[in-house]
Amino acid sequence: MQFENLLAKRTENMGASAIRETLKVISQPGMISLGGGMPAPESFPMEIINQLCSRVLEIYSSDSLQYGPSEGFAPLRETLTEYLAEKGVSATSDDIIITSGSQGALDTIGKILIYHGDKIAVEAPTYLGAISAFNPYEPKYISLVTDDNGLVPEALDEMLSETKVKFIYLIPTFQNPTGRTIPLERRRRIADIIIRHNALLVEDDPYNALRFRGTDIPPIKTMAPDNVVYISTFSKILSPGMRLGFCVAPKLIKDWMVLAKQGVDLHTNTFSQAVASEYLAGGYLKKHLPLIVDVYRRKHSAMLTALDKYFPDELKWSRPDGGMFIWAVGPSYLDTEALYWKAIKKNVAYIPGKYFYTEEKKGNNAMRLNFTMADDATLDRAVKILADVLREEMNHESVNSEWRDTAVPHRTGTD
Amino acid sequence: MQFENLLAKRTENMGASAIRETLKVISQPGMISLGGGMPAPESFPMEIINQLCSRVLEIYSSDSLQYGPSEGFAPLRETLTEYLAEKGVSATSDDIIITSGSQGALDTIGKILIYHGDKIAVEAPTYLGAISAFNPYEPKYISLVTDDNGLVPEALDEMLSETKVKFIYLIPTFQNPTGRTIPLERRRRIADIIIRHNALLVEDDPYNALRFRGTDIPPIKTMAPDNVVYISTFSKILSPGMRLGFCVAPKLIKDWMVLAKQGVDLHTNTFSQAVASEYLAGGYLKKHLPLIVDVYRRKHSAMLTALDKYFPDELKWSRPDGGMFIWAVGPSYLDTEALYWKAIKKNVAYIPGKYFYTEEKKGNNAMRLNFTMADDATLDRAVKILADVLREEMNHESVNSEWRDTAVPHRTGTD
Repeated sequence: MQFENLLAKRTENMGASAIRETLKVISQPGMISLGGGMPAPESFPMEIINQLCSRVLEIYSSDSLQYGPSEGFAPLRETLTEYLAEKGVSATSDDIIITSGSQGALDTIGKILIYHGDKIAVEAPTYLGAISAFNPYEPKYISLVTDDNGLVPEALDEMLSETKVKFIYLIPTFQNPTGRTIPLERRRRIADIIIRHNALLVEDDPYNALRFRGTDIPPIKTMAPDNVVYISTFSKILSPGMRLGFCVAPKLIKDWMVLAKQGVDLHTNTFSQAVASEYLAGGYLKKHLPLIVDVYRRKHSAMLTALDKYFPDELKWSRPDGGMFIWAVGPSYLDTEALYWKAIKKNVAYIPGKYFYTEEKKGNNAMRLNFTMADDATLDRAVKILADVLREEMNHESVNSEWRDTAVPHRTGTD
Repeated sequence: MQFENLLAKRTENMGASAIRETLKVISQPGMISLGGGMPAPESFPMEIINQLCSRVLEIYSSDSLQYGPSEGFAPLRETLTEYLAEKGVSATSDDIIITSGSQGALDTIGKILIYHGDKIAVEAPTYLGAISAFNPYEPKYISLVTDDNGLVPEALDEMLSETKVKFIYLIPTFQNPTGRTIPLERRRRIADIIIRHNALLVEDDPYNALRFRGTDIPPIKTMAPDNVVYISTFSKILSPGMRLGFCVAPKLIKDWMVLAKQGVDLHTNTFSQAVASEYLAGGYLKKHLPLIVDVYRRKHSAMLTALDKYFPDELKWSRPDGGMFIWAVGPSYLDTEALYWKAIKKNVAYIPGKYFYTEEKKGNNAMRLNFTMADDATLDRAVKILADVLREEMNHESVNSEWRDTAVPHRTGTD
């Protein structure tokens, strides 16, 4: 039987087969992946989780295995109010919805807010998981202007004056893919702007707790609580495999998210929610988090050292104060996708920059480098290999591009 | 800030607020709920799960807590091939996708196949969770003709001759809400019909393992493998709180489901998948399942005994050989939604029949009764209370309806 003719029109928006093909090789044996976005496995609180599984069955008994409310397991929502308060986000448990990873929040938000052709504004570059959550709902993307300090407030103001968008999607802290953080003063201006324009901001904050230097900056949610849907996750502070996200949203949005979630998965995994609840309430996170941050600080330092040592001067890269990613940008003629296949042959993978853009022909000269999966020595080796591949490619390319500059007129129409 | 104007058009299709309001009272303290669809908590293998949590951390270590592939945890998909083979469903692990409950499969199928105005065919009545999964994708529903043996093949044949539908959605075994099972011979005819019409069937099979009498009937998937997406779940054989569904689909459909799932939740909870995998592979399900079935057989018998003893003769009800539900139908003047609020006052809840229909003004005289949550004595008491309320209402209603029959001409235009 043929099924092609049964596919919904929205699947035209869901292809993304290029990146799937590209990333498939990342999991090949022997590959050093700077491409993934996985937390370091040694950062998982294995022993604590083992204890908490038994404890949860003891405390909550069969309730930890039963169907639960779509908005989430009540004790977890309750204890999250304290966790959020420490970040400056004030919320009652009624304001909180637990989702299947922060991806689950992005999907539900897309479902209730985006209809075919609706405009949403995203940073350029932005998180590709958000693009894959929103795409099936067929938005038109508006790319927001960013600099080394993230979103440029004036550009946001101008965009909102001209264009009606359903929402703005931002990762203000240790952004994926750039690692950039929007400074406090700029956050205040962004908050003022969205309040003034009556605009809705979806603030995705997965890396917040992973700061290894500098001081915490409060989420934009704290500055414009009525205009912000705040999303975070247990993926980086407990376990990504448990697929636990949480979201603080204005009442109408939260109620619709709950309704949408009923259709998507009824509710988030009860047992994992109970484990996460005990992890917070029992003070385990507070004890364990410094260990996670130490692991990341060390790896981040190892990668920056290697980049400084090996990478060609023509590339610039971010030096984030936390999170999991470094964003490296080369000269405009650099084609990081072509380079990718050469790096793969030498068993080093990363993600080509273009996949983080919603517009064509952007980010071709950039790459996202993850430093959380490999050990220090492997990071050093991988960056060295990548630097060699880059140098070879760039020598070759700069010659080629000179040649092309002169040769182009003669080649018109032949390719 | 006002958000109403931000809502996507599809939310018009997602209201369902009536049933939410109706069901809210079910969880009130003191309520005897015959309304839920929850497995009996005493059927959960608590001690086995406790052991398996430790075992999974030991065997799979950090892999059990890490991000995993969107199609599902490889060892679980592998061991499911054997579980499925025992049901007659032949599948390789490549044909299987693990979803966040079977709800997750229904949502993804809706997402990739249904576009605004597309037709899908469902039994009338059908599972209301399927309606809430499909509604956001804005289908038009075609109601399939059913009798006491479920879907009527001739009616399906006729419908497919006249109408192009994206798919047919069926629960052939111990259907929710009716408890009905389509007999073997009828399944063969349905298989022939969908093959002949080149139609796609979504076969939802959550209750298959919960047979307490009679012999197993193979899924329609075994008779038309290329035309059927087969969905089942761990909710009734392990734990619903773990949100683990699984799906065997033709390659193109499965590939698109995986792609859609990436946007929805990246993947299903890894830890729970690992626990389920060990539950199957270690032979625990085989040991535990008879205990679950015994619990249900006893409760089912208690409820049928009570219905036979107390319910008015004007009602007829199904006598399923498995599953979790009994469907009771009264005389056409019976209004089970009005009755609901009277039953609630006496602390007994059920689900009014109308909520299982996609058409207006159907099922008003029916109710779904669940027998898995209460103990035998409570089931007896609840059915007795419900019978009293019914009798009172029906005496009153039959008088009223006589009065209305004569009074209607005089009241035209006044209500």
